[in-house]
Amino acid sequence: MSKYWSNIVKKISPYVPGEQPKDKKYIKLNTNENPYPPSEKVLKAISAAVNESLRLYPDPACESLRNTLAKYYGIKASEVFVGNGSDELLAFSFMAFFNPGDTIIFPDITYSFYEVYSSMFSVNYRLIPLDDEFNVPVEEFFTENDGIILANPNAPTGKALPLQSIRKILEKNDDKVVIIDEAYVDFGARSSVPLIKEFENLLVIQTLSKSRALAGLRVGFALGSEQLIEGLDRVKNSINSYTLDRLALIGAEEAIKDHEYFCEIRDKIINTREWVSKKLSSMGFKVIESKANFIFISHPKINGRLLFEKYKENNILVRHFNSPRIDNFLRVSIGSDEEMNIFCEKTKEIIESLN
Amino acid sequence: MSKYWSNIVKKISPYVPGEQPKDKKYIKLNTNENPYPPSEKVLKAISAAVNESLRLYPDPACESLRNTLAKYYGIKASEVFVGNGSDELLAFSFMAFFNPGDTIIFPDITYSFYEVYSSMFSVNYRLIPLDDEFNVPVEEFFTENDGIILANPNAPTGKALPLQSIRKILEKNDDKVVIIDEAYVDFGARSSVPLIKEFENLLVIQTLSKSRALAGLRVGFALGSEQLIEGLDRVKNSINSYTLDRLALIGAEEAIKDHEYFCEIRDKIINTREWVSKKLSSMGFKVIESKANFIFISHPKINGRLLFEKYKENNILVRHFNSPRIDNFLRVSIGSDEEMNIFCEKTKEIIESLN
Repeated sequence: MSKYWSNIVKKISPYVPGEQPKDKKYIKLNTNENPYPPSEKVLKAISAAVNESLRLYPDPACESLRNTLAKYYGIKASEVFVGNGSDELLAFSFMAFFNPGDTIIFPDITYSFYEVYSSMFSVNYRLIPLDDEFNVPVEEFFTENDGIILANPNAPTGKALPLQSIRKILEKNDDKVVIIDEAYVDFGARSSVPLIKEFENLLVIQTLSKSRALAGLRVGFALGSEQLIEGLDRVKNSINSYTLDRLALIGAEEAIKDHEYFCEIRDKIINTREWVSKKLSSMGFKVIESKANFIFISHPKINGRLLFEKYKENNILVRHFNSPRIDNFLRVSIGSDEEMNIFCEKTKEIIESLN
Repeated sequence: MSKYWSNIVKKISPYVPGEQPKDKKYIKLNTNENPYPPSEKVLKAISAAVNESLRLYPDPACESLRNTLAKYYGIKASEVFVGNGSDELLAFSFMAFFNPGDTIIFPDITYSFYEVYSSMFSVNYRLIPLDDEFNVPVEEFFTENDGIILANPNAPTGKALPLQSIRKILEKNDDKVVIIDEAYVDFGARSSVPLIKEFENLLVIQTLSKSRALAGLRVGFALGSEQLIEGLDRVKNSINSYTLDRLALIGAEEAIKDHEYFCEIRDKIINTREWVSKKLSSMGFKVIESKANFIFISHPKINGRLLFEKYKENNILVRHFNSPRIDNFLRVSIGSDEEMNIFCEKTKEIIESLN
């Protein structure tokens, strides 16, 4: 604690990202990265842009990338905002749409950064408890609020909400901004993007970090009505006019254009998720039905923290959250088939050693 | 104006960056970019990093780059913070060190983004008028305040403050954070970095956009006491854990390491600035003595806005600020000798055509 810190900075508990160990080689199933490389076309386009033009500022309006995204999703470029990863977009959304002292609502089990933003921007929140199977109780989102955030699929559970539930939430909250965080949507959930034309209060946030295998490039985007996008633009231009560098802009554009490769690696990950889920179920695990590139699992007889430690001893990193209701679960990112075969083998060994 | 916007977003007037025209080819002297390409070693290192590792998140702690900067400046890595350009660092500093309702002070003529941040983060400001020669009246910074920001050299004037003036300001404000924005310091001003060991209230902010010719890569850094750096870290980790992508991290590191190339292009720009300043003086311009990679000029007989338009007609972009006291001045970035020869020739023609 320092006397130079603002009151907010004294108070906040910053987010802790999954560990990025440098001590040895792990099978890294802890930060939901894509096991496959980015598209060759992305790498080629970035390579071609590594030249003397890096002395010049990027386009602050990011027009080319926004046009590409607009075309891909069948909307207008003025309905697209791009930024430095979906976390930055979420932070900008808090500043753009919520006032200090407002009370927003989100599930008690969800992306833990939402609580951090609330604290950072002095926004209150009311947690809506998921049921025992981690389902979202949709009617609870019809209560009074100053804004809503829902991750779909939810993290860290991987459970998806049907589109008609989101539609109902939008209808019942038409004077409040409803943010649907679709970081993992490409792995099997239904996107809310088609609802943008109907609901001016809907903001959909996506990222290139997961399904486009570009976590290292830092690009996310938000889709919504022109007035929401203009709100985000006003925040950006009051903080940092150029949040995306020239290489990220070019790489992101190629990633969106290479739809074929995107489908290929997405399908591979979904297939792997399905067989791993079955295998773990057959080993006695409770496996929450996932529409994401991770699974959320617990074992009836083995403590979650202990299991996390055992995987780590076996050079496998997964994610354990020391939070109420989910401290017996582990979030396991879907790696390649080869990695998941090793994961399943090691799981078998660990269970046997503890029985 | 939208009913969905927060009160702040309704109120703010975002910053407007210098134009990046796409209609035709200009000699671009309007955004203080470096006329020389980035170091070959930077381009080589980035090229080598355009590979499948882009699927993985960058190091959120940016350790390697922070170690390189710490070694370069002879300080500890815990005294170094890196971010997405110096604008982001300034925004984080407002959140980290100033409270809503605080009153900070900065000159009436300076980087116009300081007013935007103040508005964005509900911080009040008192403007300290520069004298008629654009000098900073140092004693005026001994008055009561909740924080100070000084650009050194100042923008858009290019005038530098001597180190003993900054020392006095630090001494008289030892319980407040004093931010020295050194975006342009490498072009001839004295850096305050050596004062970091003495003053725990000093934060120095620099960028790779100007002297390292990497505006397109978006990297800035802040140097200061461990407690100030920890404050910035807490803000970053409450907004976006990964603000620098893998390619920016690697490019920035090589740029700092290639000291020889840095000196070479810096010296060329300083030499060009000196002869251009003399030439413009001989043509009757008032040329403020600059320690930056731009000059701030006015002509006794020609209106600043008109001159701006005339340059634009001649395919030369410079910057005009429609602000009190400086609306008769133009800020002209220092280009290559070739570009500045054309600039001087065109200047001569414009003056003659208007006389």
